[in-house]
Amino acid sequence: MEGGLPEKYRVAIVGSGNWGCVAAKLIATNTLKHNIFHDEIRMWVYAETLPNGEKLVDVINQTNVNVKYLPVRGANMLVFVTPHQFVEDACKRLAGKLRGDTEAISLIKGMEVKVDVPSMISSLISKQLGVDCCVLMGANIADEIAEEKFSEATLGYRENREVAERWARLFATPYFAVTPVQDVEGVELCGTLKNIVALAAGFVDGLGMGSNTKAAIIRIGLNEMRAFSKRLFPSVQDDTFFESCGVADLIATCFGGRNRKVAEAFVINEGKRTFDELEAELLQGQKLQGVLTAKEVYGVLERNGWFDVFPLFTTIHDICVGNKSPSAIVRLYQL
Amino acid sequence: MEGGLPEKYRVAIVGSGNWGCVAAKLIATNTLKHNIFHDEIRMWVYAETLPNGEKLVDVINQTNVNVKYLPVRGANMLVFVTPHQFVEDACKRLAGKLRGDTEAISLIKGMEVKVDVPSMISSLISKQLGVDCCVLMGANIADEIAEEKFSEATLGYRENREVAERWARLFATPYFAVTPVQDVEGVELCGTLKNIVALAAGFVDGLGMGSNTKAAIIRIGLNEMRAFSKRLFPSVQDDTFFESCGVADLIATCFGGRNRKVAEAFVINEGKRTFDELEAELLQGQKLQGVLTAKEVYGVLERNGWFDVFPLFTTIHDICVGNKSPSAIVRLYQL
Repeated sequence: MEGGLPEKYRVAIVGSGNWGCVAAKLIATNTLKHNIFHDEIRMWVYAETLPNGEKLVDVINQTNVNVKYLPVRGANMLVFVTPHQFVEDACKRLAGKLRGDTEAISLIKGMEVKVDVPSMISSLISKQLGVDCCVLMGANIADEIAEEKFSEATLGYRENREVAERWARLFATPYFAVTPVQDVEGVELCGTLKNIVALAAGFVDGLGMGSNTKAAIIRIGLNEMRAFSKRLFPSVQDDTFFESCGVADLIATCFGGRNRKVAEAFVINEGKRTFDELEAELLQGQKLQGVLTAKEVYGVLERNGWFDVFPLFTTIHDICVGNKSPSAIVRLYQL
Repeated sequence: MEGGLPEKYRVAIVGSGNWGCVAAKLIATNTLKHNIFHDEIRMWVYAETLPNGEKLVDVINQTNVNVKYLPVRGANMLVFVTPHQFVEDACKRLAGKLRGDTEAISLIKGMEVKVDVPSMISSLISKQLGVDCCVLMGANIADEIAEEKFSEATLGYRENREVAERWARLFATPYFAVTPVQDVEGVELCGTLKNIVALAAGFVDGLGMGSNTKAAIIRIGLNEMRAFSKRLFPSVQDDTFFESCGVADLIATCFGGRNRKVAEAFVINEGKRTFDELEAELLQGQKLQGVLTAKEVYGVLERNGWFDVFPLFTTIHDICVGNKSPSAIVRLYQL
């Protein structure tokens, strides 16, 4: 079969955690099904121990995914799905060891603010490795995809539609629909900024405000996500916010998810316990992504004089650090 | 005070139900506060008896809103908030009895399909009475607004921004934010079409599909609402779907509301009970707005050959009438 055919694409996953394992399952389905991909997927379990002390290798072995160490050499499709804080170091260890035709994709939600401007994870991977990097974001709670319940995801790409469609073929299954969108920054910012809005949803839940209020806060959040993304990257498209990475992931995160949960607990405890304490108790030492991102975004708003344009983002950070009471979340326009 | 000043605007409500009473409360706050409005609001309680036998006059008197019969003469701001099926008859009884400077606004969600083209309630009021008609839609569960919990609404207008802003002043309070949008059809179609999507959300809940699936179905629903509205009225704006009438009302309706509830019950009963039976039991004889609208929209899709473009709307109707099983809702793209 292989005689005169082009070489098959070889996939490696730089990953860990539930989402890494579930992504491996989706990919394995497709490497077996589509002839363009080599059957074998290699997985580099980058962070061996989670902050809570659980060994990732144990987790992954329990789920029957084949795990090998440093198996990235030889691969030309690299899937990044590590925790946000490990990606920079992983890239440093990979730099200079990759094939010339390597393409990357990031499934990591988060961003780094260095100096003034937020730096997206996909840009970090691109710059450190000298490769093009797509992103895959959406309403993708890993456990539900593992159970093969219908989900959608958005694949953000910069220019090369052919590469984007190859990535889509690698991930898409009948229960996991992947839509390519030419807006890598918009897609990635959705995945990051939604965690801030989820805090506001948690505040509203903690205040017992009802359906209208919660829907209003989610809507205002979606619009601040959109306005913020467009100010940072004028290429960002409005339509991206109608994709799974936008409105759908936001809904899933604002009705489930730990950012919402901890924010609700913060309000119920009436400010007697700080976010730091609640995080320590409820998240076993991990930090809430939303609280970190809210702080980073607040810094961007401050440096640019944008507080008036983003009353929700501003107020969420003020509440997190104890400068405003949670009920300020429903008085955004009464300043 | 009144000496050389222009005549004050006189408001009358043609209404009934919870939403009518709560609208009266919002309006009363503003007629007392803003000098441009006459203090007295008159309310024509159009439908005296609800289908469940409860007398509306009793309901309204319990809430201390002043009610008079046929008090519409003399008013030049007419607020329509009757049930959908009564508006045409109310208009017939009002025709020819209105002041020349009358403006109308509709808070009624629903549409009529006559012959081929859906006819909006605002158009019906406009045509029957020869007046301009705005609409007010949004995530507006009446009981929560009565409790003064923060809500938003969208005011759709056709051309006259000054009139739109006057309506906004009549309704807006610190806990009820009103945003004017120049897209009367888009705003009104949102209020109608969301009830179809709520049925799909109920099916997903009944199937126990989880957060990803529900978020995906709501997202697909929002996009079919948008595409359908734009095909019917090319003037419809994408931005309207980011307003309270769009994404926010859809979220509130898909997580609460009776369309969702009955659709969930339909799935849990595994098709052993028809929608008609469940409606009779759960809604005391009222018909589900979503089921009626799904049927009307299905007719439009059929006449135009649009089934392929609207797989969610098509499938929802097929499930309601028993032509497909509820699980078809998560196999939209596997036809």
